[in-house]
Amino acid sequence: MSQPDPARIPAPGAQYLSEIREQPTALRRLLDHHAEFVRVADAATKHGGGIVRMVGHGSSDNAASFGVYAFGLLPGLTAVRDSISLLVYYGAKLDLRGSTVVALSQSGRTPDVLEYVERARRGGAFTIAVTNEPDSALAEAAEAVLPLEAGPELAVAATKTYSNQLAALALLAGCLAGRGDELTSRIGEVAGRIEDMLPGLERLAASFAVPFASVARMFVIGRGPEFATAREIALKLLETCQIAAEPLTATDLAHGPVAALDPLFPVWSIASEDETLDAVVDATARARAAGATVVASGTAAHALRDAQYVVPVPRPRLPLLAPLLSVVPGQLFAGSVARAKGLDPDRPRGLSKVTLAR
Amino acid sequence: MSQPDPARIPAPGAQYLSEIREQPTALRRLLDHHAEFVRVADAATKHGGGIVRMVGHGSSDNAASFGVYAFGLLPGLTAVRDSISLLVYYGAKLDLRGSTVVALSQSGRTPDVLEYVERARRGGAFTIAVTNEPDSALAEAAEAVLPLEAGPELAVAATKTYSNQLAALALLAGCLAGRGDELTSRIGEVAGRIEDMLPGLERLAASFAVPFASVARMFVIGRGPEFATAREIALKLLETCQIAAEPLTATDLAHGPVAALDPLFPVWSIASEDETLDAVVDATARARAAGATVVASGTAAHALRDAQYVVPVPRPRLPLLAPLLSVVPGQLFAGSVARAKGLDPDRPRGLSKVTLAR
Repeated sequence: MSQPDPARIPAPGAQYLSEIREQPTALRRLLDHHAEFVRVADAATKHGGGIVRMVGHGSSDNAASFGVYAFGLLPGLTAVRDSISLLVYYGAKLDLRGSTVVALSQSGRTPDVLEYVERARRGGAFTIAVTNEPDSALAEAAEAVLPLEAGPELAVAATKTYSNQLAALALLAGCLAGRGDELTSRIGEVAGRIEDMLPGLERLAASFAVPFASVARMFVIGRGPEFATAREIALKLLETCQIAAEPLTATDLAHGPVAALDPLFPVWSIASEDETLDAVVDATARARAAGATVVASGTAAHALRDAQYVVPVPRPRLPLLAPLLSVVPGQLFAGSVARAKGLDPDRPRGLSKVTLAR
Repeated sequence: MSQPDPARIPAPGAQYLSEIREQPTALRRLLDHHAEFVRVADAATKHGGGIVRMVGHGSSDNAASFGVYAFGLLPGLTAVRDSISLLVYYGAKLDLRGSTVVALSQSGRTPDVLEYVERARRGGAFTIAVTNEPDSALAEAAEAVLPLEAGPELAVAATKTYSNQLAALALLAGCLAGRGDELTSRIGEVAGRIEDMLPGLERLAASFAVPFASVARMFVIGRGPEFATAREIALKLLETCQIAAEPLTATDLAHGPVAALDPLFPVWSIASEDETLDAVVDATARARAAGATVVASGTAAHALRDAQYVVPVPRPRLPLLAPLLSVVPGQLFAGSVARAKGLDPDRPRGLSKVTLAR
């Protein structure tokens, strides 16, 4: 067997970094499908317009945490990260008529998400697949398909798929509220801001990654729509850096976990310029009082006094969209820490791109 | 000032252990209120019988994870751990008419849970407070009160409050399904089983605690109703042992976090004799393949081959009630590990019994 040409082996994390950089382009590709979102939103409304049931695993489930706020704040709908096992494993007899199902799967092949959609559709729900693979089994099983348009994602740790899932949920929620044009325009602006902030942010995230190479555990806190960001950044740290990173809402930190903190147990705190800011400021002060090193991020990073590291992002015109911006420092930081530890963020140990685990 | 009499200072964790041991008695105290559960269930059904919105923080929120299955499997109702911030901070305009709110708070003083209940009641929901303090502000704010009857809980880390919350949710769900008598009888049986298993389980949990004194991080996995158990055991380990313990569903482990595992990163795995057993067996095998030390627990602990430690619990006649049993080994283990580390599980650093954080 011939040896691979060293010049052709990409640097560790090259793919992961290039996909982070591609996020603005991927967002714009999604917005080109605005008309399909309008059509699917109309069909969902005609079908019943009841609660929105989101299903997915990993990053897709993190995006669903954002969906709770997008659907709650734009059309005023109750949206839930539904239990897959209740329907698929336990065969619960729920009344699904009038519900809208939003199934999130990059590959469209996640087995229990597929089975959930099949059962929910038989049970009378209006089912929408949001996937990168419009020819997948999931897309076929659902009544409607919204293309994710993130494009091929080769790094195992998802980045542009996640941000396009956020945008897809925001756009669908916007269309359900009759505000599709506004959302398209606001998401387009955010794409531009990500583009503008990336070079500076890459340098900043890399500048403090090395001291975190010896960190074994972290909390990532956020509240409201930014709880999704906390979950997604924690997952990137777990996958790419082997850091036991746990996401917590700002309030839940005080209900127990704060007792575990010490100076070797840092906290990444996401503060947004919105109604939850005081809660996040309080929780972060509590973490500092417990001796934790704090990384302050989000659109209101500067409100977190005493933080050792500050990685702010610009404010979007629609505050709901802040998570599209605030996840990027975490994505970049995880990549930098992974490289500092000699790990390859493109190929985390024991993972494959398509997870077929049940 | 006089010195405290050393003979009167309780041993570290004495309170925590005595409250674990009190769980069967506390469960029976709750069952004495069966008639009130029937009345409240009837009132909720008359009010609309729509989705059940549960709110709480910390252990109360963990109990709500169980409620998703209790309400889903017994009366076939969609029950969700509702977003508190959506209503309380962001003032989302949700249609709450027909919803039943179940607010869980040991003290009845959790500020944002109280505010959620006030807003939800004004918005037309039927509100039920489940609390140890029937004279609390929360009980006053809600339309109906269900007494938790756990009795005074002095250790900061909740044990009997949590198990009585599970029982209260199961009993309420049973009453909504017209199966109140059956649930009362089944929960009573479970109380007896906990009593029977406690002495042996205390010895078993203590027997392997010492090697975990040097552990910094763990995953706790479970699925279906046992995801609540995974969350609650992880919280006990965080609070009392300063272990960064993260709860995961069996399936989500494969979607990223498995990449972080190594032999110093053990996994506590809860297997139940139910429809999710294969998923938990698969996930546990994956954790073993990644080199993790595994503690097998739950009613089907013996199905987890290759586990280094096995802590089974007996099977209840109603499988849904397994979490009442399977949390106990984790409570005891956390107490033993805390003592092995020289920590006092009665008084974790930085926590107080009533959390007023927003």
